[in-house]
Amino acid sequence: MSIISLLTDFGQTDSYVAQMKAVILSINPDVRVVDITHQVTKFNIYMGAFCLASAAPHFPLQTVHVAVVDPGVGTKRRSILVETKHNLYVGPDNGVLMLATQNETITHVYCIENPDYMLSKVSNTFHGRDIFAPVAAHLTTGVKPCEFGPEIHDYVVPNFAKPQTKKGTIVGQVLHIDDFGNIISNISAQQLNQANIHSGSIVCAEVGDKTLDLPVFLAYGDVNQNDCLVLVGGTGFIEVAVNQGSASKLFDVTVGDRFCLSIIGC
Amino acid sequence: MSIISLLTDFGQTDSYVAQMKAVILSINPDVRVVDITHQVTKFNIYMGAFCLASAAPHFPLQTVHVAVVDPGVGTKRRSILVETKHNLYVGPDNGVLMLATQNETITHVYCIENPDYMLSKVSNTFHGRDIFAPVAAHLTTGVKPCEFGPEIHDYVVPNFAKPQTKKGTIVGQVLHIDDFGNIISNISAQQLNQANIHSGSIVCAEVGDKTLDLPVFLAYGDVNQNDCLVLVGGTGFIEVAVNQGSASKLFDVTVGDRFCLSIIGC
Amino acid sequence: MSIISLLTDFGQTDSYVAQMKAVILSINPDVRVVDITHQVTKFNIYMGAFCLASAAPHFPLQTVHVAVVDPGVGTKRRSILVETKHNLYVGPDNGVLMLATQNETITHVYCIENPDYMLSKVSNTFHGRDIFAPVAAHLTTGVKPCEFGPEIHDYVVPNFAKPQTKKGTIVGQVLHIDDFGNIISNISAQQLNQANIHSGSIVCAEVGDKTLDLPVFLAYGDVNQNDCLVLVGGTGFIEVAVNQGSASKLFDVTVGDRFCLSIIGC
Repeated sequence: MSIISLLTDFGQTDSYVAQMKAVILSINPDVRVVDITHQVTKFNIYMGAFCLASAAPHFPLQTVHVAVVDPGVGTKRRSILVETKHNLYVGPDNGVLMLATQNETITHVYCIENPDYMLSKVSNTFHGRDIFAPVAAHLTTGVKPCEFGPEIHDYVVPNFAKPQTKKGTIVGQVLHIDDFGNIISNISAQQLNQANIHSGSIVCAEVGDKTLDLPVFLAYGDVNQNDCLVLVGGTGFIEVAVNQGSASKLFDVTVGDRFCLSIIGC
Repeated sequence: MSIISLLTDFGQTDSYVAQMKAVILSINPDVRVVDITHQVTKFNIYMGAFCLASAAPHFPLQTVHVAVVDPGVGTKRRSILVETKHNLYVGPDNGVLMLATQNETITHVYCIENPDYMLSKVSNTFHGRDIFAPVAAHLTTGVKPCEFGPEIHDYVVPNFAKPQTKKGTIVGQVLHIDDFGNIISNISAQQLNQANIHSGSIVCAEVGDKTLDLPVFLAYGDVNQNDCLVLVGGTGFIEVAVNQGSASKLFDVTVGDRFCLSIIGC
Repeated sequence: MSIISLLTDFGQTDSYVAQMKAVILSINPDVRVVDITHQVTKFNIYMGAFCLASAAPHFPLQTVHVAVVDPGVGTKRRSILVETKHNLYVGPDNGVLMLATQNETITHVYCIENPDYMLSKVSNTFHGRDIFAPVAAHLTTGVKPCEFGPEIHDYVVPNFAKPQTKKGTIVGQVLHIDDFGNIISNISAQQLNQANIHSGSIVCAEVGDKTLDLPVFLAYGDVNQNDCLVLVGGTGFIEVAVNQGSASKLFDVTVGDRFCLSIIGC
């Protein structure tokens, strides 16, 4: 049984997500559909990219991930299919797929153009239902990625997918503020290691409007209640958190803000 | 594998929807359950009818759709089962099923009375779980619609299902305001065509408290960002929208308000 | 096909629930996952316990229920597996499982310690994904409950699971205020009967800050619109409700408050 994951900014009040699922089941009634989230802030590609990248590594291999955060629907932005060593990703060519796919190894990127695998009537307002859902469903029936359109190499790779490291400083961005108030960056655990920052280090954290010296630890409970720390969150990305509190109440910060860590000592 | 769709105004905080799913799976463990939405505004039959009608055409044939927006639960309102050429619909006899079913061809409507297909103990407060869910599940096991109760012909058909067209003017109602702020009417694309309104036309749109001259186009991106237009939405119904903005912030409008379009020119 | 239910306080904005589902499907791709709710008020064990207890009786026998309302994650609180005559329950040892399990007959409680059935790397922040989800999935593949760790008898049984009855007065607590505004207690229908309170009785209801004389009836529609009543809700627990209105707007009440009924007459 194949798995398709869905991530959108459609919310859960309208029937849009159900329409996508209905299209998928009409093409492949045996597929398993798993919602990642539909509560991405509207048009917020950062947040969509983060949520996808945090969930994708836990799915079985060969999952087809569909992400629709798509402010450019109906314009000339392309629809793409990204093949990695582990999985397949379907969505608009605006970077929303790029954080998850870069964590794996991208093997091919195709521009989706073949109308045989779209709904017979494609609207200008709802490619999630008319293009991305049927493409994903056809992938689960065994259609090869190269049959959906030509391979491309100039797909969009946004800045947020590329934190910069130099001389003990990592410059990234805030990708997500979760429901608990944890401020999550685009910096991976590996990048922290490469910068020689480890549990027990003290770092200068510049997040949004504030610069604070903070300890790096493994668990929220490694500092006192209401104290602030830097840690590798459950998603594999570096976050600033407050033990049993909310970091987002401490920092004045929004998604897209600079998130910079510099080593002080250890 | 059979499909049951669920639409309610129960919200997602309580376990009510899960109780319905649990009842369904207890009767038919092989059925696939797809949520349309559970965020219908409480007791808002208009909105429930719209969400169901917008999603139903995309499902595989012979789907069993269950819609529970039910201000009259526990009173004398009847429970009905509507059979169309394509699908089966289960819910209260208050009109919530009628927009979706009238888009198909209704073949029979039955009053659900047979206790064999209800839970053994039917509460006065939760027919979604005690009647509609088990009826839907039994339908997927092959029980024939006529076995649930007598055929009826005096089922409730509310006004909102019938927009009026005269002399280049279409008078409908606001059925739904979606999560993006698009104001969606009960006027179909065919009715727009019949009134000789096409892409490129200019119409006088009377929506809620405002009357504006607006262009008719195919895509949000056919007008500048923040400009307003009339278009056929992804659901097949006519909507007033703002490109990358919210029409509902521009118009003071609620569900049920008059939604009237008159041709000016083209 | 086995069923796993999920209940958390994670909300639906983040990908945390999807990560749990992904872990489950990686271990057992054939399992059916049903969401009970993920909107439990954060860290509110009362509300989690109520939602689980209200939904669990409707599921097929041998369902594995996972409940993660877990303020103590990463501390010394234990992870437990509760086996009842009907089902299996997995979650933290903080009482969240105890209202549902006490309604059935508890046969064994195990402390989850065997790392063979956890993810290879267990975080200090997300036991839902790293311990509870894989344990539930392994249970559905046939691993016996006793293989997860030693049996224990000193598991946490919180006070809220036991309303007190004396001399025509039942003293319980507010367990939940639902999305309709119904104020739901931990008092069962049986306990009401044992106190000789029946439909048609008048009771003195002391709920939160108010004391009102209210009628006991079977259905919301048994009182006039906007009138208040006491009834057995669809969940089997006693609630104070307003017909087509919201009791929570009438009473100033929060979860955990005293909910006391005394017979006046009938």
